[in-house]
Amino acid sequence: MPPSSHLSEVYRPDFGMLTDLYQLTMAAGYYDQKLHQRKAIFHLFYRKAPFGGDFALSAGLALAIDIVKGLKFSADDVQYLGRLKGANGKPLFKEPFLNYLQRLKFTGNIYAVPEGEVVLPHEPLLRIEGNIIECQLLETALLAVMNFSTLIATKAARIKAAAGADTVLEFGLRRAQGIDGGLTASRSAYIGGCDASSNVWAGRYYNIPIKGTHAHSWVMAFPSEEEAFEAYAKAMPNNSVFLVDTYDTLDGIAAAILEGKKLRERGHEMLGVRLDSGDLAELSIAAREMLDTAGFPDAQVIASDSLDEYAIADLKARGARIDVWGIGTRLVTAHDQPALGGVYKLAAIEEDNGEWSPRIKLSETVFKVSNPGRQGVRRYYDEQNDFPMGSIIYNQFNGAPSGRFYTEEGFSISAPPGLREDELLRPVFEDGVLVYASPSLQSTRDRALKSWRNWSRITNFANFPHGLDAALYEEKMQLLEDFGFDAL
Amino acid sequence: MPPSSHLSEVYRPDFGMLTDLYQLTMAAGYYDQKLHQRKAIFHLFYRKAPFGGDFALSAGLALAIDIVKGLKFSADDVQYLGRLKGANGKPLFKEPFLNYLQRLKFTGNIYAVPEGEVVLPHEPLLRIEGNIIECQLLETALLAVMNFSTLIATKAARIKAAAGADTVLEFGLRRAQGIDGGLTASRSAYIGGCDASSNVWAGRYYNIPIKGTHAHSWVMAFPSEEEAFEAYAKAMPNNSVFLVDTYDTLDGIAAAILEGKKLRERGHEMLGVRLDSGDLAELSIAAREMLDTAGFPDAQVIASDSLDEYAIADLKARGARIDVWGIGTRLVTAHDQPALGGVYKLAAIEEDNGEWSPRIKLSETVFKVSNPGRQGVRRYYDEQNDFPMGSIIYNQFNGAPSGRFYTEEGFSISAPPGLREDELLRPVFEDGVLVYASPSLQSTRDRALKSWRNWSRITNFANFPHGLDAALYEEKMQLLEDFGFDAL
Repeated sequence: MPPSSHLSEVYRPDFGMLTDLYQLTMAAGYYDQKLHQRKAIFHLFYRKAPFGGDFALSAGLALAIDIVKGLKFSADDVQYLGRLKGANGKPLFKEPFLNYLQRLKFTGNIYAVPEGEVVLPHEPLLRIEGNIIECQLLETALLAVMNFSTLIATKAARIKAAAGADTVLEFGLRRAQGIDGGLTASRSAYIGGCDASSNVWAGRYYNIPIKGTHAHSWVMAFPSEEEAFEAYAKAMPNNSVFLVDTYDTLDGIAAAILEGKKLRERGHEMLGVRLDSGDLAELSIAAREMLDTAGFPDAQVIASDSLDEYAIADLKARGARIDVWGIGTRLVTAHDQPALGGVYKLAAIEEDNGEWSPRIKLSETVFKVSNPGRQGVRRYYDEQNDFPMGSIIYNQFNGAPSGRFYTEEGFSISAPPGLREDELLRPVFEDGVLVYASPSLQSTRDRALKSWRNWSRITNFANFPHGLDAALYEEKMQLLEDFGFDAL
Repeated sequence: MPPSSHLSEVYRPDFGMLTDLYQLTMAAGYYDQKLHQRKAIFHLFYRKAPFGGDFALSAGLALAIDIVKGLKFSADDVQYLGRLKGANGKPLFKEPFLNYLQRLKFTGNIYAVPEGEVVLPHEPLLRIEGNIIECQLLETALLAVMNFSTLIATKAARIKAAAGADTVLEFGLRRAQGIDGGLTASRSAYIGGCDASSNVWAGRYYNIPIKGTHAHSWVMAFPSEEEAFEAYAKAMPNNSVFLVDTYDTLDGIAAAILEGKKLRERGHEMLGVRLDSGDLAELSIAAREMLDTAGFPDAQVIASDSLDEYAIADLKARGARIDVWGIGTRLVTAHDQPALGGVYKLAAIEEDNGEWSPRIKLSETVFKVSNPGRQGVRRYYDEQNDFPMGSIIYNQFNGAPSGRFYTEEGFSISAPPGLREDELLRPVFEDGVLVYASPSLQSTRDRALKSWRNWSRITNFANFPHGLDAALYEEKMQLLEDFGFDAL
């Protein structure tokens, strides 16, 4: 029986069903083959940095933790699955597997990059180790939450960087892809560096600062703009931003100034004006001049209208005098690249004799061939100023990283000596038990701002030492040769 | 106190907080001005058809109904709002308004286009009539669910049209924008004409057919492709589609045929092979030939790999022999245009004397000036074959449509006589009471397939009679003149 609300179905305590059917048919296959206890290692990573950049900003781990905790199937879920039919009209799933499913929970290990940390292409955001069925059933939902959160956090970091010291507000809920498309976008945008959101729900739940004043409809509801501003100022004297472009923007600024003077007489200060259409460079310069001349040098100029990092850079280059940037659609949908394209690949499997056997996914493009083994990422930093000096993907089955490594372009590089080393992935689940305490969203945002700033100081990323540890590289080449590929 | 799960917050029985802060600050303003009982009319519409097309396919009404039913604020919500501070450190909202908010629910009328119906630019998808506060508070959430659902249903309709008689499967959950980004995308894609989804959750909840077989990781988990296919066929004899491109596609097809013969000996039929990389035109032609030659003319060729309507058309033009199209990222994120850009505009407000006063939102582009009044949409159809013959937006305050109307290009046209007329918007809420019974998703999909097919038969849409009723057009021009704009 369906619940009373379509949207209520978005929340369920059990996330087992939040998966692709093929994960369940494969699970049934492993169970049938008595391979369901077989241990496997999967990595979740992306291959190409979004938006033409060099890296991404990790986000979504807190949601991934919920997904893992929620890997369960209710009696109702299992009944539904039991009713699914194959091509011959007979049930797709057999009773013993369905019973197994109803007892299933995650019992393995997960290692993850903390939220708010820069991650390079091919570096695992998550490493999932455990029974192959459990790992496989988590794939779809983990990809969904990590892909989207990381995408939006990265977009927000780019926008915040373009805005420099200015304030950035996220305004996107109305154009978001679904309800938690909006909620997760607000969360990720805040991690990426946005200062506040318009989303009240996100504000309450995530303790994100929220902002908002009035819309065009407010102005249209009154006989004149002056009366609209007057009514708003009386009702909200301590939140007095006036939207000035409902009719004519320059007239609107003049009306705002008039109302600002009245506000001041009543002991309040006008906070600013908002521009939402027209040439924002010209209009913001005019607004700044009018506000300064009228004695409102502290009133802010807020701008919105299909903005993103490119529009901000363009407006700044044209001398715009904008203090606060309101960003909606292009941020919350990552308009120029609305999917990260992260993948989840098998990298090792335990054989009958208890030995780990490496696995790679072949592809016509060597770039797309996945890396084998139990992957760690070793980061190297200049001790004095936290400047990133290198990042190596290595196979922990081969021991510590050698310090010699290969880049995507085939260069061999040695890590400079005397650097601070850091292991990027942290334990999150051990034998199915959560061992990770998520930091507050505020401290995650601080970390992200610092991480993004430090990594953005690398001017020529092609020359930055990153890639595969020598031992892992040689192992991968050997595997390719075993498959009949020429070594590169 | 936050709930135990981040994602659980996505569901709440009360959707009042699912809004932008400025809706609440405006609401407080209306309350302060004692205007909260003032009646207003808003329309939700889009201005420009997505994906370079001529129209969109309406979807999302069932979700919109949930939003309206859920327009409530809990005691906790109101406490949170009471703690918000303005610029001077004093509370943003006053006690009487917060008390009012806690008693608030929707008491107005809503009219809507049924899901699965073609809607033209500027035609209201929803008309919301009621107390201005209630209407305003619903804006953000209604836009979020209607924009996204309509966007994805439209994308799906385009893809299904490109696929012709072939089957289309939606595979997008892993790349969707958030959890209900995925759930709502699966629902909307099914409305738009997809035949099935991989999303198990959507399958169970919406009773959408679900499909899935196995991934590359299944093949990689076994010593050889042959062993992998054998194991899968034994576990899932009635769901036997083999993914053939893990190593070499042509070898994979040969291995699938080998296993298909064994399956047949055991009394089962191989359903098909899936191609997921490489030149899908060439490979599908080769697969078809190999399958036919080996005695499997009924085995299907299934293809996936960053497909959309353009890729399908291109592959068909190149002679591809593909029976089933698996579409993921580019469908569920509407990759080439990830937001619809629908808006929600005030069109009339009740004056103190009880008379309705029209409202328009001006803009530098006349195209973006909103239409005033209480808008209905009258559709004209050829009685004999349901072919659309015209569509007029009219102001119901002026009575029935005149039959004379103006198009965006300024042409004046008269509706041909003797046509079947239909009023597009149906009553959904009356005085806050739900009066609309949502049809089943299956019948909505049938309606959508028929509606999209009929409207797609219009070869030159610029010449198709649509636009504003003469009386509404003249009223709008008069309002523009009153604002000092030249009549056009």
